[in-house]
Amino acid sequence: MFPQHIIARKRDGGRLSEAEIEAFVQGATDGSWADYQLSALLMAIFLRGMGTEETVALTKAMMHSGIVADLSGVRGVKVDKHSTGGVGDKVSLPLAPMVAACGVPVPMISGRGLGHTGGTLDKLESIPGFRTDLSLDAYRAQVERIGCALIGQTRELAPADRKLYALRDVTATVECLPLICASIMSKKLAEGIDGLVLDVKFGKGAFMKTEADARALAEAMVGIGRSMGKGVRALLTAMDQPLGRMVGNALEVTESIACLRGEGPDDLMEITYALGEQMLMLAGAAHEPKDARKQLEHAIRSGAALEKFGEIISAQGGDPHVLENPARLPQARRQVAVASVRDGYVTEVDAMGVALAALHLGAGRSRAEDRVDPAVGVSSLVKVGERVSVGQALCVVHANDEAALAQAQARLLDAVVIGDHRPAPRPLIAGLIG
Amino acid sequence: MFPQHIIARKRDGGRLSEAEIEAFVQGATDGSWADYQLSALLMAIFLRGMGTEETVALTKAMMHSGIVADLSGVRGVKVDKHSTGGVGDKVSLPLAPMVAACGVPVPMISGRGLGHTGGTLDKLESIPGFRTDLSLDAYRAQVERIGCALIGQTRELAPADRKLYALRDVTATVECLPLICASIMSKKLAEGIDGLVLDVKFGKGAFMKTEADARALAEAMVGIGRSMGKGVRALLTAMDQPLGRMVGNALEVTESIACLRGEGPDDLMEITYALGEQMLMLAGAAHEPKDARKQLEHAIRSGAALEKFGEIISAQGGDPHVLENPARLPQARRQVAVASVRDGYVTEVDAMGVALAALHLGAGRSRAEDRVDPAVGVSSLVKVGERVSVGQALCVVHANDEAALAQAQARLLDAVVIGDHRPAPRPLIAGLIG
Repeated sequence: MFPQHIIARKRDGGRLSEAEIEAFVQGATDGSWADYQLSALLMAIFLRGMGTEETVALTKAMMHSGIVADLSGVRGVKVDKHSTGGVGDKVSLPLAPMVAACGVPVPMISGRGLGHTGGTLDKLESIPGFRTDLSLDAYRAQVERIGCALIGQTRELAPADRKLYALRDVTATVECLPLICASIMSKKLAEGIDGLVLDVKFGKGAFMKTEADARALAEAMVGIGRSMGKGVRALLTAMDQPLGRMVGNALEVTESIACLRGEGPDDLMEITYALGEQMLMLAGAAHEPKDARKQLEHAIRSGAALEKFGEIISAQGGDPHVLENPARLPQARRQVAVASVRDGYVTEVDAMGVALAALHLGAGRSRAEDRVDPAVGVSSLVKVGERVSVGQALCVVHANDEAALAQAQARLLDAVVIGDHRPAPRPLIAGLIG
Repeated sequence: MFPQHIIARKRDGGRLSEAEIEAFVQGATDGSWADYQLSALLMAIFLRGMGTEETVALTKAMMHSGIVADLSGVRGVKVDKHSTGGVGDKVSLPLAPMVAACGVPVPMISGRGLGHTGGTLDKLESIPGFRTDLSLDAYRAQVERIGCALIGQTRELAPADRKLYALRDVTATVECLPLICASIMSKKLAEGIDGLVLDVKFGKGAFMKTEADARALAEAMVGIGRSMGKGVRALLTAMDQPLGRMVGNALEVTESIACLRGEGPDDLMEITYALGEQMLMLAGAAHEPKDARKQLEHAIRSGAALEKFGEIISAQGGDPHVLENPARLPQARRQVAVASVRDGYVTEVDAMGVALAALHLGAGRSRAEDRVDPAVGVSSLVKVGERVSVGQALCVVHANDEAALAQAQARLLDAVVIGDHRPAPRPLIAGLIG
């Protein structure tokens, strides 16, 4: 099977066989296909598409391009969550311990931030001492012992995805539904999970700009999961303004701790509960959302969820005292409020504008090799619909650099739009698939 | 200008600007684009196409990716010929000296054979001592002195084409009209010519299978030439059976010498004269085909064309005595006839079957790094429409290897189809464009 014959078939709009897709993925993994052959096929897939069977075959081949973690030693139905990425989306941090505190194992392997969205690993690593580079054995043992581990992708898991994703990024072949599906699902299914709840975001601050695109992606991923015998459900959620009131690594840990104390902002809690409900139901721990919600609320009220987060932090080498005293987290040298220049109602908080402000403060990465500054970001951000008056703080900028601070202030002033009338409230959760 | 933005524009069906096309070609030439980015854009071009302006810009950029030979010191209108490739197509060998003998300078830079078609360089190099690796200075001086040089592509000419062609070959992006046009035209125009006559072949033994495809390619190339201020004309010619009666490197030199002695086979002479007529007219040496034909016939009758070939051979280090005594060319150890197994008329001589027989005898290359055997091939091949009887030779196989000989005999017996009725004659030249 020559690469050029497989490329030619897709180029001409044909359907690739399972064997051809396996040859492609094997070629990406062991280097037997040259990078220029991989990228030519990626472009042909981008322009010609892939049918459901092909996408499932691609997902399977990528999932099996490395080790599939064996969590059979962990009792219970193991469930994870994946978000397609948004601004201020720190949901994994409170959600994983909440669900684990309800007795459902959560083996979670996350990524780093790139572009305008933050990464769970970067947030966790702002906790002094916290290590995310656990081996697969340590990961398995931790899930077995305390019901949850929050680690980074290891080299053994879905190596074909790492190779192909890096190529897609530099060859304009990222925004392609079957490739996105296979990338997400292969990585997640290689974790050794039984079920997965997806948070597919749409809007100005998300990769998918429209609800229709998000729905198509969600349906495709739910379909792949089903074909592979896994329980998969997806929530469609709006991402026009940042989630919560804090953006930045340590700041998002602080806000996550607030959630676990029952003091989280409404929008963040709404999504966290909704995802948690689905996870508990997938795991068979609840039969309806109301029942699941009660268990999750109890995990917070009782302190069990916060305690579970503490166990996870301790198990992964972090300082658990940040839970009582978030000031132990890295703090920026300068904390400066951005004041409103007029009275009115907040009609928009442009997630992308806030993300870019945070990015330039040092909270994110423009390129994969960039280092993040854990302390910087934005806190106390106003929400759409709130009333503000001249001089009132719209947010607080946390900066370690004067030039970046000034630039961030200007960007944030632009990002918060104030009008004369209170905007009609819009639902945060637009649908459930699966 | 990031490569991925340029790739994305073509991916989405947009038109690339001249600056974007120049960036792509520059990237191919200096390595500032990675191979996987080049191949992603090649696939996007394959699937999205290119408009005329884009193709002209691509041709210009590729032509100027290296040196454009300066032949301003050569008096007269310099004209070359290019064929899209066929089996037994040795036309360049008699044509170039014929036209040069009429006083029109012919600076000709040719390629090697790859796949099923032979290469002019391989044929010339079967003449003992003949060198095709002249420097651009030596090439220029020779055209100035004797009106013709037959050399191979140098590294200085259109390096972007060499890079892109090698990539296209392994990424299933060869058969793409704008890329084919730009590849041919950039190389030819970098020779420093004023005019070009194209032989665009169609049929079973050609790259273009249908007359319509050949016409489209011819029209596109003529259009590019015009946009660049060069006289370009194209003949559309049939390539179902091999051209002439000999296939193989030294054998084709032998048949070319016969042409120059006025003893060439009819089909080969018909195409050679037709192309020569257009070259003379493009150069302003004749005003109508009849007049041009007379000059070309005179060049043969007078011996001037044969003498010119001798001058070229001597100038390039070859043994000119092959002209009087073609037995000085390499000879295969075994020469065995393939006998007809029935009486009837030759209804088909499958050019591809003959080409594969010659290829496996060693006359051609499957891969660029293969070496060719100059002596092997096929001679005395019957032509469509001829009457044959049982036991009569359909051709003679020239082989240096017993196993290849047996295989070639079987292939050739398959390639020559014999029926009961004489087939209706079909025109060899289907049209003239430009």
